[in-house]
Amino acid sequence: MTRTTVESASRTVTIGFDEPFCVIGERINPTGRKKLAAELEAGDFSTVERDAIEQAACGAMVLDVNAGVVYNSNPNPNETEPPLMRQMIELVQGLVDTPLCIDSSVPGALEAGLEVAKGRPLVNSVTGEEDRLELVLPLVKKYNVPVVAISNDDTGISEDPDVRFAVAKKIVERAADFGIPAADIVVDPLLMPVGAMATAGRQVFTLVRRLKDELGVNTTCGASNVSFGLPNRHGINAAFLPMAIASGMTSAIMNPVRPGEMEAIRAANFLMNHDANGATWIGFSRVLDGMKEGASFAEASKAAQDAGSGRGGRRRRRG
Amino acid sequence: MTRTTVESASRTVTIGFDEPFCVIGERINPTGRKKLAAELEAGDFSTVERDAIEQAACGAMVLDVNAGVVYNSNPNPNETEPPLMRQMIELVQGLVDTPLCIDSSVPGALEAGLEVAKGRPLVNSVTGEEDRLELVLPLVKKYNVPVVAISNDDTGISEDPDVRFAVAKKIVERAADFGIPAADIVVDPLLMPVGAMATAGRQVFTLVRRLKDELGVNTTCGASNVSFGLPNRHGINAAFLPMAIASGMTSAIMNPVRPGEMEAIRAANFLMNHDANGATWIGFSRVLDGMKEGASFAEASKAAQDAGSGRGGRRRRRG
Repeated sequence: MTRTTVESASRTVTIGFDEPFCVIGERINPTGRKKLAAELEAGDFSTVERDAIEQAACGAMVLDVNAGVVYNSNPNPNETEPPLMRQMIELVQGLVDTPLCIDSSVPGALEAGLEVAKGRPLVNSVTGEEDRLELVLPLVKKYNVPVVAISNDDTGISEDPDVRFAVAKKIVERAADFGIPAADIVVDPLLMPVGAMATAGRQVFTLVRRLKDELGVNTTCGASNVSFGLPNRHGINAAFLPMAIASGMTSAIMNPVRPGEMEAIRAANFLMNHDANGATWIGFSRVLDGMKEGASFAEASKAAQDAGSGRGGRRRRRG
Repeated sequence: MTRTTVESASRTVTIGFDEPFCVIGERINPTGRKKLAAELEAGDFSTVERDAIEQAACGAMVLDVNAGVVYNSNPNPNETEPPLMRQMIELVQGLVDTPLCIDSSVPGALEAGLEVAKGRPLVNSVTGEEDRLELVLPLVKKYNVPVVAISNDDTGISEDPDVRFAVAKKIVERAADFGIPAADIVVDPLLMPVGAMATAGRQVFTLVRRLKDELGVNTTCGASNVSFGLPNRHGINAAFLPMAIASGMTSAIMNPVRPGEMEAIRAANFLMNHDANGATWIGFSRVLDGMKEGASFAEASKAAQDAGSGRGGRRRRRG
């Protein structure tokens, strides 16, 4: 069975069909977060620190790190992203032992991250576009790391799921040409907002099943995209995730500091027989009890983690 | 595509793979409800009335009616159930126009219910046990109604999903011998508590998919059974239902007066493209808004229904 291993210096996470769903925390990303972007330009990393610790406590198994900030002082990401990525990776892996996902569209930033990341980080991402394949796959091979493969190509994002499947297949084949095994490819079949495209959910459920059955690859998605623009969107997310898990999806890039979504994933893991004796579920119900007493989800998760019942990232204190 | 039609005097509900998930309200049932049992023996039907109205308001598409009360004055259900079933069916169909599900293990009570129920009620249930097949299938044929088929037989409930599939197949074949089409069989593959049997969830997801793909039949289950004995069990139920829906399950017998479970089903319907333009989801988000202002789920659902935005059973006032 396909097993994708992602590692920090001291911890291994396996993404696979017989494993608990892999939650990849999306918060450390200045895209669309103006305040965080301004902080990073000013050299203030306090939000990054908090996001790392909170996400790990809430159950993120991998932390995505994106340095895609556009500085007011220098709008060229090829110059700004690589050093910032290096700095953010070093900071985060000094705070938590959660494996990392190096997220950039700038190849220089991916390589900067790969140079400093300990263990075996996940690279996010390659697409089916020719220039991406030629730039990113050699890095993936050189550093022997797994990579997220997004199923769009030079023709854009197809609304036809057969085309998206074919693009994923092409990436897996091209990776094989570089000597990269299918187990190191985590396909993102591209999840559209269901409010804009009524078939978006069903398409992804069908695609994920095909990707599992026909290519044997692990899958991921930007889960919250499905509910974009809708009222009560966390309710949509919390149903989407179990449905995706039942269809064979093995990871998602998402906000783990959301109790509804994390509860749905914990329950789905139990229902998929990926939570022996419900131990994680029972631990999680204590977090919910903590919230009933007035704690935030992050606070209650942190308290459970410190009490030793958490299954999220153990924190190592600096210094 | 398989379509199971269930009807009241004025309303048709279709159970099918291209339809919203059919919620069968389970509340009108004295089993395990001592207070209700005592009320019924005393001729007090106020709880039945409230349960009918609340469940319809909260989104039940079919209402299960079970008269399985053991009277202190007469412990013989063959004598007590038929007249009580008749009385309860007449009461409920005078209150709401939601189609009914006649639920009994006493054939005389099923027939009493069938005699007075208007439209095309669902019968709950037949099993693969020989005496049940011979007693219930002739009634199903005589009244031309659909029936829930529970996949256990004279050997009991098998833990082997292949045996449960084979029992379901046998019931479908025996029904065909009586001239009952597969579209009128709604198979209950038997959902065990995941706390007692770790594979219970996965087994049912796989069985439901096989029952759909190989027999083309609609399916149902007693949904809350999956979380029996577990902490925070409504969180398990709220993940189970979307997973079952993604696997092809088309109905469940459950408590519709639970916002978490109903939210999960509403979201799953939207994600399966069974909620055009998200109209029902958007209506439901108004119910949740009402709850934020302090109303109970039943109250907020009722207010939304009265305002004309509900999709649950419209209430007809008596007299």
